[in-house]
Amino acid sequence: MSLIVQKYGGSSVADADGVRRVARRVAETRNAGHSVVVVVSAMGDTTDDLLDLAGEVARKPPARELDMLLTSGERISMALLAMAISDLGVPAQSFTGSQAGMITDGSHGAAKLVEVSPRRVREALDNDNVAIIAGFQGVHRSTSDITTLGRGGSDTTAVALAAALDADVCEIYSDVDGVYTADPRIVPSAQKLDRVSSEEMLELAANGAKILHLRCVEYARRFEVPLHVRSSFTHNEGTWVIPSPHENLTPQKEIPLEQPLIAGLAHDRSQAKITIVGAPDHPGIASRIFRLLADSEVYVDMIVQNVSTGEHPLTDVSFTLDESQGALAMNLLRAAEEKIGYTRLDYNDQVGKLSLVGAGMKTNTGVAFTFFQALADANVNVDMISTSEVRISIVTAVEKLDDAVRAVHTAFGLDSDETATVYGGTGR
Amino acid sequence: MSLIVQKYGGSSVADADGVRRVARRVAETRNAGHSVVVVVSAMGDTTDDLLDLAGEVARKPPARELDMLLTSGERISMALLAMAISDLGVPAQSFTGSQAGMITDGSHGAAKLVEVSPRRVREALDNDNVAIIAGFQGVHRSTSDITTLGRGGSDTTAVALAAALDADVCEIYSDVDGVYTADPRIVPSAQKLDRVSSEEMLELAANGAKILHLRCVEYARRFEVPLHVRSSFTHNEGTWVIPSPHENLTPQKEIPLEQPLIAGLAHDRSQAKITIVGAPDHPGIASRIFRLLADSEVYVDMIVQNVSTGEHPLTDVSFTLDESQGALAMNLLRAAEEKIGYTRLDYNDQVGKLSLVGAGMKTNTGVAFTFFQALADANVNVDMISTSEVRISIVTAVEKLDDAVRAVHTAFGLDSDETATVYGGTGR
Repeated sequence: MSLIVQKYGGSSVADADGVRRVARRVAETRNAGHSVVVVVSAMGDTTDDLLDLAGEVARKPPARELDMLLTSGERISMALLAMAISDLGVPAQSFTGSQAGMITDGSHGAAKLVEVSPRRVREALDNDNVAIIAGFQGVHRSTSDITTLGRGGSDTTAVALAAALDADVCEIYSDVDGVYTADPRIVPSAQKLDRVSSEEMLELAANGAKILHLRCVEYARRFEVPLHVRSSFTHNEGTWVIPSPHENLTPQKEIPLEQPLIAGLAHDRSQAKITIVGAPDHPGIASRIFRLLADSEVYVDMIVQNVSTGEHPLTDVSFTLDESQGALAMNLLRAAEEKIGYTRLDYNDQVGKLSLVGAGMKTNTGVAFTFFQALADANVNVDMISTSEVRISIVTAVEKLDDAVRAVHTAFGLDSDETATVYGGTGR
Repeated sequence: MSLIVQKYGGSSVADADGVRRVARRVAETRNAGHSVVVVVSAMGDTTDDLLDLAGEVARKPPARELDMLLTSGERISMALLAMAISDLGVPAQSFTGSQAGMITDGSHGAAKLVEVSPRRVREALDNDNVAIIAGFQGVHRSTSDITTLGRGGSDTTAVALAAALDADVCEIYSDVDGVYTADPRIVPSAQKLDRVSSEEMLELAANGAKILHLRCVEYARRFEVPLHVRSSFTHNEGTWVIPSPHENLTPQKEIPLEQPLIAGLAHDRSQAKITIVGAPDHPGIASRIFRLLADSEVYVDMIVQNVSTGEHPLTDVSFTLDESQGALAMNLLRAAEEKIGYTRLDYNDQVGKLSLVGAGMKTNTGVAFTFFQALADANVNVDMISTSEVRISIVTAVEKLDDAVRAVHTAFGLDSDETATVYGGTGR
């Protein structure tokens, strides 16, 4: 008998039918002899609907009240799920984040977990109940105010509970079968990965793969929680995300010592590129620019600086960021025109990023060659390049991005003969 | 400067416009120099919608989970209201029943308050905040499970907080101007009462007046909380419900020593009458019948027993109850046919009750005469009669009820020259 934490996203419990379907799935797991903890998100569009209401009553809703408002969404879904499970003859109890001991700091809207004390969840399990926990929410340690964990919050709730309860596995359910070598909507021949290391998964998540949130992968790696990403629509095995590739074998899954060269590709269409043209090329210019942006919580991704020559050398600095922060960054830079001293600002939100991820590339020198050759053959212009130990990323024109993904996928022999199944949205 | 508790029902905050309207009202009160605590119900039909969802996922939802589900409704309305008030420049903080210290027993769905410890509410007031409290909900003392207070729950929350905080007044807002001498929908010439004693209000509420819930009036009387029933659509004075008629004058309102003869009329269409025909007339037969019903929580209202004569005397026992419990009562009686021994059961849900309430009738012997004369003149057949010190009630055919209300209202000189304004629903 294992202890299994299952997390279901909002699209899995979008309506009463979805709630009953998830309930059957939970009851099956329970009836197979396992202890089950379920983390659930708000139903379908509930969170967006509540945000709309907030926008109708206030121009700038206080963050404390926004958290109180939004957390009602998970209360609804968790209570309904507990009812539906009970209706199948399996005793179930729901718990809010506060009741489940999800203690956070006071950053409303993006709270960080500071302690997880699931005493009541343990009691419920000891009394043979399925425990249903509201995802995404916690309670501020000192004020007892209700907080939310921000983006990817429900995944984080699930992993944190799995770690605190020493669960055998944390299953993340969504509407796709697992992690693919590339987005099956763009590469129909993409293959589902049976397993991926958390190091690789981190790079995929950080570079545009939507299946798992970066924060949840980091948490799982840190606390050595095995993740199993799978579909709530099938009983197929999904993808195992293994905390450390060569150690900590889980009881469920043996991991071969040989590591595949490439785990997969991630892409991100939501990039924008800003170029500061003709800035004076003296030491500290880059740090001045990026300090300015960091102070306003603008997150810069890739940076390229061209060093010029001559008597009064000028430099062009380009960087990418999420396009949602593009306008803010441009305003900050315009306001600092005199302080920085530049000729011109260029803004381009028609760019995308392609990343190739694989732990094997640490020890294989041919990867970069194959990568760039494939892009050249496909007539893809490379704008910017960045690399890590297990990743190469490039920025290119957004209209070239799909071609680039397919060309690289083929070049590394990742295409399968079968067509991947896509069930619906993004699973989040 | 006073401390004012204001309670707004679901129809007052049915949508974003309603929330903003209530917010302006609260801000006005605050800006007039008062401390304000607001108790709010779930928006419009939220509670019914959630109940529908529960019915879709489970045949018999566990009461604990139903309470968790339903309490999300008030979390939504209270957070939105706090946002809307903040948006007007008045600092506001919302609190769940649990956060506001509404400690209850463990009777999910109909919990009783066992303690009210509004420490956090007091802190919020001390820090110049308006405090918004979720009505209808509490937390079980020993398990920390979320509970609901059942029908009239938000009114009870408001009165309980007013008592615990020693508020100067508890204002109950709805879509009618106050308590009337009769339902203005039936008697357009009904007059708004400026004040009514809590003894009279108890009888009116217990006998069909929907404006205030019985439990809230009882609580207010017990803890000597002055209630002010008024409309959220106007600034008119409403009706003051005064805890004890000749003592405890509130600072806001002086009460003349002379008591009017009649406070008003209440009526109730939701009555049913059951007659047990031909039961053996021996001691204990009535107690046997009513014990049987009480064991299944069937609430019996009026009882009439005809004593027969003869060698083997038989008796007919009639009683009224809320028609929602009619089928249950009939099933219980049918199952006990042998034990009780009767000839026949009659069931009639086409009956209604009319009650005349006035503290002055204690000392005035002409009231009963005028009452029955008015009914006779209006050709209203009286089926059953019951009385208390300050009330006379009759049961009649439901189609005669409106005529009866109007005839009695006129006979006691209660008709005004003006037509009462009716804004909308029932205000609950």
